[in-house]
Amino acid sequence: MEAPVVGIVGAGQLARMLQPPAVALGVPLRALAEYADSAAGQVVPDTEVGDPADLETLLAWSKPCSVVTFDHEQVPSAHLAALEAAGVTCRPGSAALLHAQDKAVMRRRLSELGLPCPRYVVVRAAEDVTRFAAEVGFPVVLKAPRGGYDGKGVWFAASADAVAKLLARLPAGVSLLCEEAVPFRRELSALVARSPSGQLAAYPVVETVQRDGVCVEVTAPAPDLDPELAATAAELAAEVATELGVTGILAVELFETSDGRLLVNELAMRPHNTGHWSIDGAVTSQFENHLRAVLDLPLGEPFARAPWTVTVNILGGPVPSLYDGFPHVFARDPGLRVHLYGKSVRPGRKVGHVSAYGDDLAALLARARHAAVWFAGDADAEQETGTPPGEGPAEGALGAPSSEPREPQS
Amino acid sequence: MEAPVVGIVGAGQLARMLQPPAVALGVPLRALAEYADSAAGQVVPDTEVGDPADLETLLAWSKPCSVVTFDHEQVPSAHLAALEAAGVTCRPGSAALLHAQDKAVMRRRLSELGLPCPRYVVVRAAEDVTRFAAEVGFPVVLKAPRGGYDGKGVWFAASADAVAKLLARLPAGVSLLCEEAVPFRRELSALVARSPSGQLAAYPVVETVQRDGVCVEVTAPAPDLDPELAATAAELAAEVATELGVTGILAVELFETSDGRLLVNELAMRPHNTGHWSIDGAVTSQFENHLRAVLDLPLGEPFARAPWTVTVNILGGPVPSLYDGFPHVFARDPGLRVHLYGKSVRPGRKVGHVSAYGDDLAALLARARHAAVWFAGDADAEQETGTPPGEGPAEGALGAPSSEPREPQS
Repeated sequence: MEAPVVGIVGAGQLARMLQPPAVALGVPLRALAEYADSAAGQVVPDTEVGDPADLETLLAWSKPCSVVTFDHEQVPSAHLAALEAAGVTCRPGSAALLHAQDKAVMRRRLSELGLPCPRYVVVRAAEDVTRFAAEVGFPVVLKAPRGGYDGKGVWFAASADAVAKLLARLPAGVSLLCEEAVPFRRELSALVARSPSGQLAAYPVVETVQRDGVCVEVTAPAPDLDPELAATAAELAAEVATELGVTGILAVELFETSDGRLLVNELAMRPHNTGHWSIDGAVTSQFENHLRAVLDLPLGEPFARAPWTVTVNILGGPVPSLYDGFPHVFARDPGLRVHLYGKSVRPGRKVGHVSAYGDDLAALLARARHAAVWFAGDADAEQETGTPPGEGPAEGALGAPSSEPREPQS
Repeated sequence: MEAPVVGIVGAGQLARMLQPPAVALGVPLRALAEYADSAAGQVVPDTEVGDPADLETLLAWSKPCSVVTFDHEQVPSAHLAALEAAGVTCRPGSAALLHAQDKAVMRRRLSELGLPCPRYVVVRAAEDVTRFAAEVGFPVVLKAPRGGYDGKGVWFAASADAVAKLLARLPAGVSLLCEEAVPFRRELSALVARSPSGQLAAYPVVETVQRDGVCVEVTAPAPDLDPELAATAAELAAEVATELGVTGILAVELFETSDGRLLVNELAMRPHNTGHWSIDGAVTSQFENHLRAVLDLPLGEPFARAPWTVTVNILGGPVPSLYDGFPHVFARDPGLRVHLYGKSVRPGRKVGHVSAYGDDLAALLARARHAAVWFAGDADAEQETGTPPGEGPAEGALGAPSSEPREPQS
């Protein structure tokens, strides 16, 4: 059987979760992992270990690939352009992906398109921030344009003093994106798949709950969402995908404001944590549709199979072996769907997720939260998991830029 | 993460389809493949090539496995006993598996349990058959007790002459199972998962359609099945699983006779072709429940997610590349679920299946049949795929014992 080889730069849980639909479609995957025993390397036979920031590595690895896609946004833009110049088909392409790699570029482009964003300015000095804050008020949100994920690279500053302290800790001359702190009612996510030939498939708009900048919970569809607002969100995601020429999954993270407006928070051009519910809850998962899109195959139905599907992330806690959670979780709840990522447990690290679907939303959330907490072993977390909407700010609190090893986003 | 390693003897499509739930559960698989580039070896990194009929190979391969299970029944019984004697946990165990390996042993044991079987006798000579036929009438069915699959090793004999001709072509002194040819209304299949601790999960009883001894179509649940008969079938499968000490999936293939009785046709102790619908159609697929059972984890719900799920097998036809079928099939039918096995196309070989679920059974069958035929490229086959029930005999016609390379059953 002559099926094209899909290359994936990165071998985290997103690459791992591409493997089940690749198995079904008979499509061989080829992963580029940054380290051995990666989440995807455990389950994708054709995995090479190498640094995607090294162009020679990237070029050599990509040779057998019919198309190259991404598990994270960390590949240098110049390398992507060089790959394309060498004739490698990248999906999404470098020109589109730039908008998911650089938040300042994204803000500029979306504003040009007239799409609703928080007010923002690119700043280099404390004076730039205070001038902006005089207009929008404190607190403001400061973001590293590149390299941030899961709340890392994002800081809230409540005063001119806090801004001065933060900037003093950053390298001189670095530019930051400075945004108004949006008083949102809740966060939503609109996912679409887009194929190179222009076909679009829009998933139901979901509600997401973040804690310390990390997605902890997703409900599909977003409860009590005004149908017009849901349609607007899906159209907005479709417009971004089309205008930016995205291929594959595009996730548009949105704020729903107290006065019923939508503002774009972030973009991601790959399967996204807010779409994991689709594995068990949709006709075609975001992972299968990502594959179909990057292969330019017609897309599968993105519709929900049940009235409600909820996903709760398993964040690393005191229990070192997630496997030990199965006897309790499965005996207690034979309808629960569990997805573990094969990653070693570290505090707060996303190491898996659980999904539940059915008619009774409150019961589904209780079931999924219980299981997620049980796997982690963090009894205190259970109460916290269900942070009521509107208790934001949900983004990371003021802190130093992270120097932890980078990890695929999701 | 300390998850146990599940070893699978054989690396056909059944082992391949264990990989998606293994990915989700974070359970590493280790396959023993008879040849390179096997269906499972393409997607399971830890695959070794070796002959399972060689005990040394089997023992060495099994060393890192926490438990060993099977993709086919072809491992010599003595080897399984030797594995167990060496301390390797086999699930199902050799004592149970023998009943799926040897049809004469199975018939004897089920008869002892008082379970309904066709009348049968073990024969060595033509006279034995004619004596039996004098009682039950011609035609009779002759079966090689071991090694048959997909209609191979099964012959219909309509007369004493035909019996004599068949036996003349077999080695002298070989013993055969001789059964009455049951005038069945249709074929059903009852699947259960059973764990070592005795938990049982029964899947909805399905209707299966065979052509030339090969399963071509499955409808879940079996249409118009008397609820009492459905319960009887599930209880029968549960009784077989319990009495024989099966661990993992047990498939009981049944005849539903014109007068509303059930007779056991065949047993299989592994995920089974008649359970493939469960990947897309049940809360927990047979593959996930097989893994959970052999790991002695609590089983997942086996319930159907939709009123109807149908599966149609893709049998090899004139089109050499199944991938080429995607543009048409996916564009025409975005709700269809396609599973390809990574096997090279040979005439009549099971190389994949398609499933569809929903409310309208006739429409689902039409959709799945169209896609299966499209992949194969065999336009003539479309009309034949839907052989109406009762048009049997569905088992293989009189022919020489097959000497084709053996292939995992499903």
